[in-house]
Amino acid sequence: MELSNKKNVEHQNSQFLEAWVEQFRPYAKEGNCANYIPALELKNPNELAISIIGSDGIEMKAGDTTNTFTLQSVSKVVAFISACMDRGMSYVLERVDVEPTGDTYNSIVRLESHEPGKPFNPMINAGAITVSSMISGNSSQEKLDTIIKLLEKMVGKKLIVNEEVYKSEWETANRNRAIAYFLMDSGYLDCEVEEALEVYLKQCAIEVDVSDLAMIGLVIGNDGYHPILKKQLFSKEVAKLTKALMVTCGMYNFSGKFAAFIGLPAKSGVSGAILAAVPSHASVHSPFPTGCGIGIYGPAIDEIGNSVAGVPLLKHIATEWNMNIF
Amino acid sequence: MELSNKKNVEHQNSQFLEAWVEQFRPYAKEGNCANYIPALELKNPNELAISIIGSDGIEMKAGDTTNTFTLQSVSKVVAFISACMDRGMSYVLERVDVEPTGDTYNSIVRLESHEPGKPFNPMINAGAITVSSMISGNSSQEKLDTIIKLLEKMVGKKLIVNEEVYKSEWETANRNRAIAYFLMDSGYLDCEVEEALEVYLKQCAIEVDVSDLAMIGLVIGNDGYHPILKKQLFSKEVAKLTKALMVTCGMYNFSGKFAAFIGLPAKSGVSGAILAAVPSHASVHSPFPTGCGIGIYGPAIDEIGNSVAGVPLLKHIATEWNMNIF
Amino acid sequence: MELSNKKNVEHQNSQFLEAWVEQFRPYAKEGNCANYIPALELKNPNELAISIIGSDGIEMKAGDTTNTFTLQSVSKVVAFISACMDRGMSYVLERVDVEPTGDTYNSIVRLESHEPGKPFNPMINAGAITVSSMISGNSSQEKLDTIIKLLEKMVGKKLIVNEEVYKSEWETANRNRAIAYFLMDSGYLDCEVEEALEVYLKQCAIEVDVSDLAMIGLVIGNDGYHPILKKQLFSKEVAKLTKALMVTCGMYNFSGKFAAFIGLPAKSGVSGAILAAVPSHASVHSPFPTGCGIGIYGPAIDEIGNSVAGVPLLKHIATEWNMNIF
Amino acid sequence: MELSNKKNVEHQNSQFLEAWVEQFRPYAKEGNCANYIPALELKNPNELAISIIGSDGIEMKAGDTTNTFTLQSVSKVVAFISACMDRGMSYVLERVDVEPTGDTYNSIVRLESHEPGKPFNPMINAGAITVSSMISGNSSQEKLDTIIKLLEKMVGKKLIVNEEVYKSEWETANRNRAIAYFLMDSGYLDCEVEEALEVYLKQCAIEVDVSDLAMIGLVIGNDGYHPILKKQLFSKEVAKLTKALMVTCGMYNFSGKFAAFIGLPAKSGVSGAILAAVPSHASVHSPFPTGCGIGIYGPAIDEIGNSVAGVPLLKHIATEWNMNIF
Repeated sequence: MELSNKKNVEHQNSQFLEAWVEQFRPYAKEGNCANYIPALELKNPNELAISIIGSDGIEMKAGDTTNTFTLQSVSKVVAFISACMDRGMSYVLERVDVEPTGDTYNSIVRLESHEPGKPFNPMINAGAITVSSMISGNSSQEKLDTIIKLLEKMVGKKLIVNEEVYKSEWETANRNRAIAYFLMDSGYLDCEVEEALEVYLKQCAIEVDVSDLAMIGLVIGNDGYHPILKKQLFSKEVAKLTKALMVTCGMYNFSGKFAAFIGLPAKSGVSGAILAAVPSHASVHSPFPTGCGIGIYGPAIDEIGNSVAGVPLLKHIATEWNMNIF
Repeated sequence: MELSNKKNVEHQNSQFLEAWVEQFRPYAKEGNCANYIPALELKNPNELAISIIGSDGIEMKAGDTTNTFTLQSVSKVVAFISACMDRGMSYVLERVDVEPTGDTYNSIVRLESHEPGKPFNPMINAGAITVSSMISGNSSQEKLDTIIKLLEKMVGKKLIVNEEVYKSEWETANRNRAIAYFLMDSGYLDCEVEEALEVYLKQCAIEVDVSDLAMIGLVIGNDGYHPILKKQLFSKEVAKLTKALMVTCGMYNFSGKFAAFIGLPAKSGVSGAILAAVPSHASVHSPFPTGCGIGIYGPAIDEIGNSVAGVPLLKHIATEWNMNIF
Repeated sequence: MELSNKKNVEHQNSQFLEAWVEQFRPYAKEGNCANYIPALELKNPNELAISIIGSDGIEMKAGDTTNTFTLQSVSKVVAFISACMDRGMSYVLERVDVEPTGDTYNSIVRLESHEPGKPFNPMINAGAITVSSMISGNSSQEKLDTIIKLLEKMVGKKLIVNEEVYKSEWETANRNRAIAYFLMDSGYLDCEVEEALEVYLKQCAIEVDVSDLAMIGLVIGNDGYHPILKKQLFSKEVAKLTKALMVTCGMYNFSGKFAAFIGLPAKSGVSGAILAAVPSHASVHSPFPTGCGIGIYGPAIDEIGNSVAGVPLLKHIATEWNMNIF
Repeated sequence: MELSNKKNVEHQNSQFLEAWVEQFRPYAKEGNCANYIPALELKNPNELAISIIGSDGIEMKAGDTTNTFTLQSVSKVVAFISACMDRGMSYVLERVDVEPTGDTYNSIVRLESHEPGKPFNPMINAGAITVSSMISGNSSQEKLDTIIKLLEKMVGKKLIVNEEVYKSEWETANRNRAIAYFLMDSGYLDCEVEEALEVYLKQCAIEVDVSDLAMIGLVIGNDGYHPILKKQLFSKEVAKLTKALMVTCGMYNFSGKFAAFIGLPAKSGVSGAILAAVPSHASVHSPFPTGCGIGIYGPAIDEIGNSVAGVPLLKHIATEWNMNIF
């Protein structure tokens, strides 16, 4: 393809993206901003933004892309990678299983009924709190720094915790505290309850924008290799395990349907964030033939916890641009 | 690559495959033939066989490949495809969900607790019985013929039901009958209980060999396109949905770990059968760069229901030959 | 107390009873006749009747006492006594536990999760079907005859099965069939599924009136001794065990509240029947100082399955007349 | 009965009691002292003691009656009575149900699945923690004092908290803390988590002997009336509700069997304590014809949490001396 032609196509694709954002923005009406965290409830539910960054570093974005928001459950992916890097995969997997459950994200039931206390996977709260307790560091601050350092390498800029959101979550964290004490009782926490919870709730409150999400997705999609830094940040094995977890458990108890109809490794958060990691082989016939990362933000979420405008937008893009791992 | 060189490589790969079968054959000692079906219990637990068929039709096989065995739960994949072809995906998905559960294959618990009676996915018995009830046909025989016809197109030869295995399963089908009556009670059966059960148990008893399995996997891997017949047998959408289901739910409550460590759409049966569908994009750097189907038979199974020699054999091949969808 | 005075008091109490029936009759509006059995749905929801029979054989009754109705779950009590007489208590209790569950009457969940397949108690459907399978007799008819014979001794007249109700239940028995096949699968049925179901559904369809219920309650309350026949029909141990079961499990998942606020051994059925067995020591300060049986009929039931007018009527009587085992 | 004759009978009964204690003492070998609390684990498992106090104040005792021990779950009964006195029965019952569950005492499952967060009954930990949060008082100390004051009125002497046991339980209270935070999350705690837990764990650690237990049982059995003080300590309604709860839920998930085979309102604790409340009408033909309270201590417990020597001793006495509410 000639350069000018390539530019034309890129321009056209950008226009498509803009149009699609406007097409799916009205879907926000079907959902609401997460209301159990005051700082999230105040967001504008009609916002919708997307960024896609290819392995060549070229970014395509559309919508309200200057907005920032907190990672929430998207942070589970990064914390899991961090724990695997720090402790080794086998250590981590002795303490958290990798099976999907079909339960809601804050369910405590299976902790009692199956291999008592062992959390089913790192993408539900129970597993994520166990993961946070395993991160390197002798205090919650050190553990958090470990996660943030990895994140900053991925996104290429400084990141901070949104203290207001963190405080707001800390004050309403009774269910998570119940889960953490249950884990402690069964021996599945590697540090004190309050330390693990502080790490977990602070990682959830890290502030990002859609471009940051797309960068995280890009590195995971690329099997841990950062195509712009030209550096392997974590092993291919950890990356593949992470993508498998995103497919089987990443979208709460919508994961099965997401895999079935969208077919990309993804993780959502109740802030309305969605992260998708697209390996090169899953996007050969797309505008990003060597893989890409996708970041979406649409704060109105459904009862399951996924962005009501973001999911259909991602589905539309994946279908139109032939991105699918299956 | 020159032709003679290609031949050499093929020969070498064949030798690898033979060696790997012998390497993993001893794993059979860790399991047992399914003992709830007398006809299965009499099988030789030490047998192990594999066939891999590429999109060019070239087959590589090793081990006890002349053995035949029954499809058992592998049939759930084909019946699901058949129901989608007959009724349309949306009709099918109104009656069976596509969420993984983490429960055992014959669990009845979720039928009571979540959206009462709707089975969680077509890869567990509850969902599979619902699927069988939806197949085209006015009798169990007609429904079964619909499934067999599709299967015969895939494998290119006549197939029969092993009547001894079928009778043996029919007589011990109390748990499945309990599930079926529960489904009937909640309105999730499209025909009479006994008709649905007869279809389900007969489809489980269809006799195949590893080459047949590989052919089925090849067509699914190729998005429904039969590369030898050069014919689209079912739609790309159905194929992708099926592969997603295989990844999230295909290996019973080992599915999460299978996705994490093997990373291929697969489905197992208690006969010791494993079917894997490898899309071209997941095998670019393998000896089968345009995709392949894999059939494995190792009748000694673990407590979850998967072949104890077959799973590590498949894992070894997938790792050595770079086959992975993630 | 002089005879004439005694007559006066009896007359006064009878008038109270009439007044109370009218007082609680309007409660029927809060419920509905069981709608899953067509023959029950056609009943007049506003009917309410009561009979109380003392150990001296004197009966006090009020309301629509000429109505007949089917025993439904009240039959579980008699079938349990019959099985204990036929097989011995220890044989029966090896096959059915006596723990309350807090689950609904037709729940199947615990069959899977606790000591797989052993029903929790004889007052829920799973336990009752197991009990029916243990009754003496080589056919469903013989087993049923065993139960009816015991019942007829208690009530002193011939009883018949309401064939219309039975047929209606047989046709809609899918959930019970699911339970029965589950029990068969786990080895907790003493005869074939269809035989056990036929016994169970026919015993549920035995036609009685409130005086019959009161007679059954009288004998159970009297520790198995029939005060009019002056004959011990079954052992004191079986009677006490039965009353304990009625208290802990007799009113479905309202049993705890019934024990707490009414405090009498009782069993209800979805036909709107309630049977209460009042031991002499629990009614010393009542108009029936040597014990009594109470039969109530009010076909409008609540979501749990208890008569919405019958329960408060019984509560009122128990409170006013000082009947309480606690 | 002549006085001398009465004395003779009393003497003989005392001798029976001594003999029965020795007869059942060896049963202790089947159990172990609770091992999750170090201070309990150090107890001598072979100890067995009983006290029975009649409404006339006469006590009969046998075995190691000088031993003291902590109330543990027996305190749930007194705390429940105290909450009902302080808040009224209807206030209490809006926050805790009175249904038996069949689950273990520290189960958290039903908090998630049924009317989310509302504990099923006050005799399991979840319900007991809710009850403790409702006791009168503006601090944990004030709430505890309320309970102790009621207890002291019942037993007629000063009582203290065993600080060593309390500390030991506080340090291992993760599972209870998990339950308490879950309750807080669903709005079923009336004070802060740590305050409720402190009350709950301290009430569990109140030190008593078998005579104290018998006195508590006597007052409850007598419908709240203290026959020695000649004073109504709490209402008859609260007493009857409490006895009903003891029968349906008092012996953990052995309650159904205990009601079936022993037939007395009772409550056990993991310290090996058992409290039984015998109403006069349930003991007319016993050596305590106007009712009694029974206290038992046998620290070796079974897997469910009940004293392995104490339960059969109580069963033997209840049978031999005709004590039974049914």
